[in-house]
Amino acid sequence: MSAASPPAPPVTATLLVSCRDRTGLVAALSEFVFQNGGNILDADQHAEAETGLFFMRLVWDTAGFKLARDGIRAALAALAGRFDLGWELTFSDLRPRVAVFASKAPHCLYDLLLAHQLGELGGDLGLVVSNHEDLRPVAGHFGVRFEHIPVVGDKAAAEAAAERLLAELGIDVVVLARYMQILSPAFVAKRPAGIINIHHSFLPAFVGAKPYHQAKARGVKVIGATAHYVTSELDQGPIIEQDVARVSHRDDVSELVRKGGELERRVLTRAVRLHLERRVLVSENRTIVFG
Amino acid sequence: MSAASPPAPPVTATLLVSCRDRTGLVAALSEFVFQNGGNILDADQHAEAETGLFFMRLVWDTAGFKLARDGIRAALAALAGRFDLGWELTFSDLRPRVAVFASKAPHCLYDLLLAHQLGELGGDLGLVVSNHEDLRPVAGHFGVRFEHIPVVGDKAAAEAAAERLLAELGIDVVVLARYMQILSPAFVAKRPAGIINIHHSFLPAFVGAKPYHQAKARGVKVIGATAHYVTSELDQGPIIEQDVARVSHRDDVSELVRKGGELERRVLTRAVRLHLERRVLVSENRTIVFG
Amino acid sequence: MSAASPPAPPVTATLLVSCRDRTGLVAALSEFVFQNGGNILDADQHAEAETGLFFMRLVWDTAGFKLARDGIRAALAALAGRFDLGWELTFSDLRPRVAVFASKAPHCLYDLLLAHQLGELGGDLGLVVSNHEDLRPVAGHFGVRFEHIPVVGDKAAAEAAAERLLAELGIDVVVLARYMQILSPAFVAKRPAGIINIHHSFLPAFVGAKPYHQAKARGVKVIGATAHYVTSELDQGPIIEQDVARVSHRDDVSELVRKGGELERRVLTRAVRLHLERRVLVSENRTIVFG
Amino acid sequence: MSAASPPAPPVTATLLVSCRDRTGLVAALSEFVFQNGGNILDADQHAEAETGLFFMRLVWDTAGFKLARDGIRAALAALAGRFDLGWELTFSDLRPRVAVFASKAPHCLYDLLLAHQLGELGGDLGLVVSNHEDLRPVAGHFGVRFEHIPVVGDKAAAEAAAERLLAELGIDVVVLARYMQILSPAFVAKRPAGIINIHHSFLPAFVGAKPYHQAKARGVKVIGATAHYVTSELDQGPIIEQDVARVSHRDDVSELVRKGGELERRVLTRAVRLHLERRVLVSENRTIVFG
Repeated sequence: MSAASPPAPPVTATLLVSCRDRTGLVAALSEFVFQNGGNILDADQHAEAETGLFFMRLVWDTAGFKLARDGIRAALAALAGRFDLGWELTFSDLRPRVAVFASKAPHCLYDLLLAHQLGELGGDLGLVVSNHEDLRPVAGHFGVRFEHIPVVGDKAAAEAAAERLLAELGIDVVVLARYMQILSPAFVAKRPAGIINIHHSFLPAFVGAKPYHQAKARGVKVIGATAHYVTSELDQGPIIEQDVARVSHRDDVSELVRKGGELERRVLTRAVRLHLERRVLVSENRTIVFG
Repeated sequence: MSAASPPAPPVTATLLVSCRDRTGLVAALSEFVFQNGGNILDADQHAEAETGLFFMRLVWDTAGFKLARDGIRAALAALAGRFDLGWELTFSDLRPRVAVFASKAPHCLYDLLLAHQLGELGGDLGLVVSNHEDLRPVAGHFGVRFEHIPVVGDKAAAEAAAERLLAELGIDVVVLARYMQILSPAFVAKRPAGIINIHHSFLPAFVGAKPYHQAKARGVKVIGATAHYVTSELDQGPIIEQDVARVSHRDDVSELVRKGGELERRVLTRAVRLHLERRVLVSENRTIVFG
Repeated sequence: MSAASPPAPPVTATLLVSCRDRTGLVAALSEFVFQNGGNILDADQHAEAETGLFFMRLVWDTAGFKLARDGIRAALAALAGRFDLGWELTFSDLRPRVAVFASKAPHCLYDLLLAHQLGELGGDLGLVVSNHEDLRPVAGHFGVRFEHIPVVGDKAAAEAAAERLLAELGIDVVVLARYMQILSPAFVAKRPAGIINIHHSFLPAFVGAKPYHQAKARGVKVIGATAHYVTSELDQGPIIEQDVARVSHRDDVSELVRKGGELERRVLTRAVRLHLERRVLVSENRTIVFG
Repeated sequence: MSAASPPAPPVTATLLVSCRDRTGLVAALSEFVFQNGGNILDADQHAEAETGLFFMRLVWDTAGFKLARDGIRAALAALAGRFDLGWELTFSDLRPRVAVFASKAPHCLYDLLLAHQLGELGGDLGLVVSNHEDLRPVAGHFGVRFEHIPVVGDKAAAEAAAERLLAELGIDVVVLARYMQILSPAFVAKRPAGIINIHHSFLPAFVGAKPYHQAKARGVKVIGATAHYVTSELDQGPIIEQDVARVSHRDDVSELVRKGGELERRVLTRAVRLHLERRVLVSENRTIVFG
C-alpha cells in the first residue's frame, strides 16, 4: 500500500463483512461507527434467505474518528469474535497497488492504463509484467515500470522472478490482461481473490480456447466477456463482471474478435475498478458485488 | 390496503427515509430495529455529497417484534422529530391496492394483469377504469373489476366518478397504462407519487405527441420508454424507470410502434413493481430507486 | 396455409436462398424479378468468405407480376438447377399456421397470443395444445382452439393425437412455449426448422435442468434466454434469438425465475416473429437471421 | 486518399446509392457488376414505403473486373443519369484519410488511435489537431503527426491554418473527439457528412452544455452518447450511432462523467468505423446505416 496524493476527497473507511446472519449485526456495526464519531456515507447490506448468509459493505467518513487505525482493527476484531465475522477493512488514502500481466495484445492494457491516468481506477497501477517485449513502449508512454519476464522452459523461474517483483513493490492485486500463460497453482494459491483475469466469452459457455470460433460455429446471437478471480481451476473462479454484445452472420471471426476485444477491455477495467473500490466480496465460489 | 393471502413469506416492515444527512442516522434506525427484536434483511443507504441528502431503505423481519404497528409508528414519529426525517413505513402483509386506467391499447394492461396473476406485482390490482368499453373482456378474463367511465364533454364528472371508485375500493396507486386522457391538476394534486404513467419515449427527448414519428424523422438509433410519476407538468414528473431498444432504417413507424409497445409494457410493469415493493423514494423532482 | 384477411398491404413474395457462392447470383435473382415486373422492396445478401457460402433474402411486390405462383416456382426451380440453390419461396397472403404447445406456465403463451391479437406475429396462431387443462381459459379468451392431450404412459399415443391435429389444421410451425415434455426423435425429424423452443438460459451455458439454480450458484452477473429450432439433440438445435438481463446478489432464485420469465417470453415471441416473417435461414447447425 | 499497405484481403468496390424508388434498380446495379465480371460479396437494399426512397449498399470483389476505375465511374454516371441516382463509389485499397481534432480530454483520442493501430478503424488516421499542447505525447506515442493550432481571438485564422493542413494531407474526414470549439458555418459547409462529432448525451435530449448535470438533476435512469455529422445547426446533424448505460442515484456527477466517457469513446469510434467502412448514407437529415 502507498500513501495517496494530498488533495483528495474525505478519507473514508470501507468495511466488508460476511458471516452467518443473526439479529443485531447492522445495529452493532453502525453503532460502532457512530459511537466513534464516524459519519456513514454508504451502507449496503443483504441477508440471503436461501443460504442464511449476511453480506455488508459500510463506508464512513473518518474525519474526526476517535479511534486510530490500529484501534479500529482491534475493535473490529473483538466484534468479529463476538459475531463470527469475516471482514476486511481498508482506507481510501491507502490505495491498492496493482500489477498488470500482459503478453502481446495491447487493448486491455491500454484501457487499464488510461483509466489509471484519468484517476478512474481506484488504485495505483505501478507495474506491467510481460513475457514479451512488445508492450514496453505502452507502459513507458504512461510512465509505468515494465518488466520483461520471458517464460521459456522452466515456468517456475519466471514465476519466482515475478514474485520477487511483486514483493518488492508491495503489489496487492495482479490483473491478467490477456496474459497468455497459465499460472501455477502455487502462484495462484498465495493470492486468493488477488488475481483478476479476463476470459473472452460469456462463462460458463465456451470454456477454453478459441471461444470466438466456437461462438461462430454455434451461431450465437450474443457474445460475452467475463472477468473473474483466478483459482486453481481454469476459468472456474468467482465471476466479478460480465457483459455482452449482439452479433450477426455478417460478423466473421475477425469481427467477433474485434467486438470481443471491445467487450474484454470494458469488462476487465470495470471489474478491476469494482475490486479496487472494495465493492467485491467473495463468498464460497461466487462474488457479492455492491453496485 | 387489504390483507394479503395467507401462505406468505415472513411479514416484513419496510422503512423509507430521506432527510438532510447527519451523523448517527444509520445507527439510530438500525438500533431501533434491533432493540425491538427485528432482524434486518436488507439495508440500502446513501448520503449524497453534492446535495447533503440522506436516503435509506430498511427492511426487517417483524416476527417477534416487540412493538405493535401503532407503537412502531409512534416511535418512528419521535425519531423523525429528533432527526427531521421524511419517512414512510409499510408492511408486506398490507399490500397496496392498484387501479389501472387504460383506453383502447391492451398491451400494457395485459402485462400488468399477467404479472399480478403470477404474483409478481407486489400489490393487489383490483380495478380497471377505461374511457372505452374495449378492454372489458381483458379485465374480465383476469377476474378484475372493470368500470367504463366515458370522458365526454365534462371531464370533471368523469374524474369525480373515478374518485368515488378509488375511495370506495381504497385504491393506493393509479397506473396509467396508455390512458389517452390528461388528468386535471386537481386530480393529480391529491396523489403525489401516487399516479404512474408510461411515456412512449426516452424522456426528456420527444416530449409530447407522436414520439415514434419524431424518432423516425430524426433517425435515432435507439428508442426508449419512460415510466414516471404524474405531476401537474405534463411529462415532467420524477422518472422511475427507463429502457431502450435499438432500431434501424428497416423499422418503419409501425415497427417502431411495435418495438416501443414491447418497451412500454416492460418498463411500466417494472416501475409499478418497484413502486409496490417500496423501492422508490421521491426527492424533489427525481426518484431514488433502491435496486 | 390459410388465406389472410382482406385489407392488407401489398402482397409480397419472399425468397430465401442459400448455396455455394458463385458470380452472378445476385444479378440472376434480381433480373428474374425485374423481367417479370416485380419491384424489389428489400434485398439482403451476404457471401461468407470463411465458408464460401451465399445467403440471400429477397422481397418483392407481386402487384402486376407476370408469372402466376406456379410459374414462379417453375422458373425458380430452373434457376435453382442451374446454380444449385437451396431456396424457399413464400407469399405474404399465405400466412403460416402456428400451433403452440404449452404446459402450465402461462407467460410465454400470453405473449404469443397477445402479439397475434395485435397483428404483430406474422402468422395465424390457430391451436394451443397442452398436456394439462390449466391454460384452456387463456386460449379461450383469445378465441383460439385448445386441445388437451395428456401425456401419460405411452408418449407415442399423445404424439399421434397431436400429429392428427396438426395435419387436420395444416399447421406449419410448432412453438414450444415452456412445454415440459421432450418430443420424440420421430416427431422432431418430420419438422426440420419447424419446431421452435425457448430454453431458459444463455445457451450453450447451463444446458439442461434448473438453469436459474445453476446461475445462482455460479454467481453470474447476466442471465439469458435462447430460442432455437428443435433437433434430435436436446438444446443443441440452431439458435434463432438470444437476449440477456443483468442480475445481482439481491436476486434470489425466485427473482431470477421472474426476470428469466420476462426474457423467455420476449425472446420466444421475437424468434417466432422472425421465423414467420421468413427472416431465418438455417445453414448446417446455425441460423442466418436477416434483421 | 492514400494507397494502403500491400498484404490486404481482396480489393473491393463499395457503392452507396440513394434515389426515389423505381422498378429495376437492384437488377440494373447487380447486372452491371455481373456483366463486368465482379462477384458481389454483400448487398443490402431497402425501399422505404413511407417516403418512396430507395437505399442500397453493394460490395463486390474487383479481382478480374473488366472496367478500370475511370470506366466504372463513367458507366455509373450513365446509370445514374438514367435512374436519377445519388451515388458514391469507393475502393477498399484507397483508404480514407482521417484527422482528429481534440482539446484536452484524451479518452476519445486514445480509443481512435488504438483502433487505428489495431487495424480496426478502416481508414488512415494521419493527423491530430488540437487547440492545446496537452495531447501531443499521445499522438506521438502512436506515431501520428500532431499540430497545435491555438484558437485565440480570431477563430478564422485558426480555421484557415487547419484548412491548409487538411488540404496538404488530403484529409477526407474530420473527427471531433471532444473538441471544445464550435466550428464556423463556413468550415462546416465545405464538408457535408465529412465531420463527425461526439455529443455527450442521448440526443435529442440534453442538447447543449453540461448534459451530465442535466441528467443528474432530472434523475434519468439511463444516460447516452450520440455520434453525428456536424451541420451548421449545433447538435442537430444526422445521427450515426448512439448507445446508453444504466445509472443510479449512487452515481454522482463525476461518476456520470466517467460512465459517459466510456460511452463517448465507444460510440465515437464505432461511428467513425461505420463511416470509414462506407456503411453510412445520409438522406435529408438522417442516416441510413448498413449494419
